[in-house]
Amino acid sequence: MDNVAVLGAGSWGTALAIVLADNGHDVRLWGRREEQVVEINKEHRNEKYLPGIVLPENIQATTQLEECIKDADTIVLVTPTKAMRDVLNLLKNKLVSPVTIVHASKGIEPGTYKRITEIIEEELPESVLESVVVLSGPSHAEEVSLRQPTTVTVSSANMKAAEKVQDLFINQNFRVYTNPDVIGVELGGALKNIIALGAGLSDGLGYGDNAKAALITRGLAEIARLGTHMGANPLTFSGLTGIGDLIVTCTSVHSRNWRAGNMLGKGMKLEDVLENMGMVVEGVRTTQAAYELSKREEVEMPITQVLYDVLFNGKGAKQAVDDLMQRTRTHEVEDVSSLKS
Amino acid sequence: MDNVAVLGAGSWGTALAIVLADNGHDVRLWGRREEQVVEINKEHRNEKYLPGIVLPENIQATTQLEECIKDADTIVLVTPTKAMRDVLNLLKNKLVSPVTIVHASKGIEPGTYKRITEIIEEELPESVLESVVVLSGPSHAEEVSLRQPTTVTVSSANMKAAEKVQDLFINQNFRVYTNPDVIGVELGGALKNIIALGAGLSDGLGYGDNAKAALITRGLAEIARLGTHMGANPLTFSGLTGIGDLIVTCTSVHSRNWRAGNMLGKGMKLEDVLENMGMVVEGVRTTQAAYELSKREEVEMPITQVLYDVLFNGKGAKQAVDDLMQRTRTHEVEDVSSLKS
Repeated sequence: MDNVAVLGAGSWGTALAIVLADNGHDVRLWGRREEQVVEINKEHRNEKYLPGIVLPENIQATTQLEECIKDADTIVLVTPTKAMRDVLNLLKNKLVSPVTIVHASKGIEPGTYKRITEIIEEELPESVLESVVVLSGPSHAEEVSLRQPTTVTVSSANMKAAEKVQDLFINQNFRVYTNPDVIGVELGGALKNIIALGAGLSDGLGYGDNAKAALITRGLAEIARLGTHMGANPLTFSGLTGIGDLIVTCTSVHSRNWRAGNMLGKGMKLEDVLENMGMVVEGVRTTQAAYELSKREEVEMPITQVLYDVLFNGKGAKQAVDDLMQRTRTHEVEDVSSLKS
Repeated sequence: MDNVAVLGAGSWGTALAIVLADNGHDVRLWGRREEQVVEINKEHRNEKYLPGIVLPENIQATTQLEECIKDADTIVLVTPTKAMRDVLNLLKNKLVSPVTIVHASKGIEPGTYKRITEIIEEELPESVLESVVVLSGPSHAEEVSLRQPTTVTVSSANMKAAEKVQDLFINQNFRVYTNPDVIGVELGGALKNIIALGAGLSDGLGYGDNAKAALITRGLAEIARLGTHMGANPLTFSGLTGIGDLIVTCTSVHSRNWRAGNMLGKGMKLEDVLENMGMVVEGVRTTQAAYELSKREEVEMPITQVLYDVLFNGKGAKQAVDDLMQRTRTHEVEDVSSLKS
């Protein structure tokens, strides 16, 4: 059995800690707030993030990063993308021997347009970084914590490391696949949050499942278009970390990005939505990053562009969705079909 | 404005009649039951199939097929696939001049494994058949009747005919794309009903969105696998009639196939489910046809196979879904990844 450190005690970090603990590993969970750490250690609960769930006793929480990562063979990073560089900077000075870093965060950094794996490789010196593995897929934390059937994908430039991480996590309820396409896995996970905002917007306006299915279908096409342009394997977008994660995020009330879009669709202002959520909404930053990246790379991303205008240029939600539905000339299957207006 | 005959006064036939009537066409709707026809003509309602909807007055219903198709430039077939040959046989003797046939049915015929377009071309002589066009896509009838935004695809071997049908149906709420890939459009629409049964089964067992997303993702892969083998363009399965229709059918309580699967998942017997539904559940026949076709063509379709066993060989629903989740070796993206058990 391994020693695993999980950095981030939100719902997803805690759910992954449960999977690891179920597999018999010793898990140390790093949280920022003392009360939360006490609640986890004394009551085996993390009520704010996973209400009603009793945590296995082999999960121990701490606010001390050094204590958390001591003797860890593997470190799982589950921090919001915005905090990623800060956490890596803290980590850098405390690592003494090479470790495998698994990350389970979904986003692209505005300004640099970097994926999380690239950020990790940039911040951690090679001397302490054995391998980086990304874990992604259609996986609401709540369901994972209830041991409901879930499938995810792990990906790494180093397939041996991916297989090691597969072994750490896999069990009867939590099925882990490998895929060597790191770029596709990371971009699918990040970009789907944009489409989830759009799906929430459509639902918030009172539109139905037909409109949302059209939006998801076209959303997948534009994710795959940018992803393939950036070097991903197009097949990855038809897999668990592409269409799978897109479906789960766009059709479930569990999804924060969908919820944020839903509130926007009902007429709430972005500032109020973000305050109301009280949790990170990755899709907002990712929309900005993807919008800028698509402009630089000259890749057509109509949904991302419209959402950017809603989030940052005051465009009305109804006008935005109507614009998307009414585009006069679009291709159903690229290059083989057309829409007449 | 055109004269259009719509054969089939169920929810989808009536919804398509509404779209045509909204566009100013004269629509004759063929129904089997006298009370229904009277209700449509006198009260402008079809309460059993579209409760609460007031129909436009330029929809006239009749039980007389001859009266329905008189002077029609276009005939829209919206009959269950099981009744398709019977309806075509009735039609054959009454057609005097060539017409365009649009069909909006989704299925494959057990035994012959024929698509609807093939059945139509087989039953109607060339002398009265101008062209066949299929209309398909993510489109719950209820939402179409409420004029909620909807997108569909029309496809034909004759692109001029497809464009004519596009012109007939397109309006602000009902967006119509063209796609020349008839095989892909028909197989996507038919096969998705199998996966919808599976999604309902998973939900009926109390499994969550993670499990369902995995099932839909793998379902799309096996639909595309058979479809491509049968000559479809693989890109069609990433479009509205593929993943779009799959999403809408698997995630909405409107879907009959999902509802039937859901009841099976809750432990009801197939006969009782079908009796309880009181409407045609296309997915049951399609599962049989696709299962046999996949055996003959030696195409791997694990979800279809498991559902076949549930429907026709008494396999338990829980065992079925668990088997699918636990398959020891499967490919996430075909040929590039693997699952360890």
